[in-house]
Amino acid sequence: MSLQSIKYTRGSLEILDQLLLPVQSKYLPVRGVEDGWKVINKMQVRGAPAIAIVGCLSLAVEIHPEEFESKKSLRQELEGKLNYLVSARPTAVNMKIAADELLVLANDLTKDDDVDVAAMKQRFLNATEAMLKKDIADNRAIGAHGAKAILQRVAAAAGAPMSGPVRVLTHCNTGSLATAGYGTALGVVRQLSELGKLEHVYCTETRPYNQGARLTAYELVHEKFPATLVLDSMVAALLRAKNVAAVVVGADRVAANGDTANKIGTYQIAVVARHHDVPFYVAAPLTSIDLHIPSGDHIIIEERPDREMTHVGEHRIAAPGINCWNPAFDVTPASLITGIITERGVFKPAQLKEAITKLLET
Amino acid sequence: MSLQSIKYTRGSLEILDQLLLPVQSKYLPVRGVEDGWKVINKMQVRGAPAIAIVGCLSLAVEIHPEEFESKKSLRQELEGKLNYLVSARPTAVNMKIAADELLVLANDLTKDDDVDVAAMKQRFLNATEAMLKKDIADNRAIGAHGAKAILQRVAAAAGAPMSGPVRVLTHCNTGSLATAGYGTALGVVRQLSELGKLEHVYCTETRPYNQGARLTAYELVHEKFPATLVLDSMVAALLRAKNVAAVVVGADRVAANGDTANKIGTYQIAVVARHHDVPFYVAAPLTSIDLHIPSGDHIIIEERPDREMTHVGEHRIAAPGINCWNPAFDVTPASLITGIITERGVFKPAQLKEAITKLLET
Repeated sequence: MSLQSIKYTRGSLEILDQLLLPVQSKYLPVRGVEDGWKVINKMQVRGAPAIAIVGCLSLAVEIHPEEFESKKSLRQELEGKLNYLVSARPTAVNMKIAADELLVLANDLTKDDDVDVAAMKQRFLNATEAMLKKDIADNRAIGAHGAKAILQRVAAAAGAPMSGPVRVLTHCNTGSLATAGYGTALGVVRQLSELGKLEHVYCTETRPYNQGARLTAYELVHEKFPATLVLDSMVAALLRAKNVAAVVVGADRVAANGDTANKIGTYQIAVVARHHDVPFYVAAPLTSIDLHIPSGDHIIIEERPDREMTHVGEHRIAAPGINCWNPAFDVTPASLITGIITERGVFKPAQLKEAITKLLET
Repeated sequence: MSLQSIKYTRGSLEILDQLLLPVQSKYLPVRGVEDGWKVINKMQVRGAPAIAIVGCLSLAVEIHPEEFESKKSLRQELEGKLNYLVSARPTAVNMKIAADELLVLANDLTKDDDVDVAAMKQRFLNATEAMLKKDIADNRAIGAHGAKAILQRVAAAAGAPMSGPVRVLTHCNTGSLATAGYGTALGVVRQLSELGKLEHVYCTETRPYNQGARLTAYELVHEKFPATLVLDSMVAALLRAKNVAAVVVGADRVAANGDTANKIGTYQIAVVARHHDVPFYVAAPLTSIDLHIPSGDHIIIEERPDREMTHVGEHRIAAPGINCWNPAFDVTPASLITGIITERGVFKPAQLKEAITKLLET
């Protein structure tokens, strides 16, 4: 069973405290929206999908034992508490989107005369819980599509009917710790393992926050996958030395033309993969693909504080007085991307817009 | 005046304690070979040329006030103490080469009946001090040749008679802290600055030991150069965003065909530079060019302990139990190198063997 960062049954929620990782594995009870706000605000849970789901589930846990006088009072409580949860990390857009969706549902249910207050609460709880299930199901689908695409490509390149076990490289953390469970790019790795086709997985350290060394490595050790950590500077040497079959990374945002914003360092890995003729895949749920952005040029890159680069904890590692350049993300041009792996299939960047438009219509 | 990591006048030697950098700048007196052995062994001085020069100068400081009964007793003391100094870091081949050269000199002087014991001591001190001067002079020549080559190339690409100030990127530490002074790749940066042609210098962090963030950044701040630190993962994004005119790095060893072993990450930067059409230069004194090695395939890459990657000081940054791959160096193929900058000129990799052979004959 893959690492569970979110443990939920109706009325009960616990999350793995990511601030204590990788040294300590401790689950924190989340008893309601106050706790939910705190674990999001303190970054004990991180990763855009995970934040949204923990926020919404904390509200589900809160209203589960409550009784409401009227649909109106339930709706008011839901609205107030969803807004409160959004304020925990205002830049985490997934929580805002989830809150907006749930609020539309609450309004619809309030207006629907066939639904009484108890049924409204039930429907609301069901909708919240469905988000958790959907995220995991989507990730499993991404994993299946991605593993299949990689194995087919390796087989085709070798002129063989079937691929043997493969070595893959991933960047940053896209696993159970960043999602509701299973993971996106790491979901592809999990699926390869489930198929008995994972020879080895390499993960990059991912400076400055070391999500690879801290979180991905933690997940890989937990799963007992054959895995090795490399530094961000070692990718070219690795691809030359170790016969890596594919690179698979996540995405913060994919533009309509396939240009992909992701954790700083992703673009460099894509350049290096192209030089070594290694296929480079982006794994992203459809919700991360923004057809309103024509290309990566329109994605604004956040620059983060110097201190992330100059210190590890309280320990200064860079010379005092040096300037830093600390972009949080970079944009990988579509031309370097072999395929974009979604829960509905793998698409070449050039096909993406048309394919997604068609999928959204059906 | 550029940062002095080695302060020497006859009878007196001090070194900048590199273990305290970048937080504290403290010079340590080196009163003789015992002190010399200690500062080398404890890595308070590092960098192959610097180790050899500090070792030999510590011997010069030791024998300076001494009086010797006979040339034989002087020779015996020199031999014993040179061997002792070599034992401080047995893998630092430059100290061994310097000791062998000085021992040949001591033997020649012992046999030469025209030289008395006082003259022999003088000649030995002169030879030791000449090593310091030669290393700095060679580095200044590397700087001049390298700066000229970069500026000419930029001018030619622009179809202009002369280049304006340029932005350059360097990796690891190749400055005053790694050499007797001035530096190799960083000597090129210094020369650009002296010519008024340094618009900006970027240095990489250089994981796992952070020589860029700790040492190069320290030197750049000391010199008040317009300088910015980037992470190893940011080079591709940097070359795309910031109009960098050239990359210049050092070398641990250059093979006859121009293949270059250098700090891990160098090969990746070369790949990324090629992708962005940015010229990539290696700065290395002739002593680093080994014509006995036909190509980089014959260079054995040292793999270092996991702990360098998993910890910063006592602070664990990687998940317990994860495997690490930690090669100290990588090999950049000659095909990715624009020019090799030596104290005798800049050579295309393909010309290197013939040119150096000719230089060594004259």
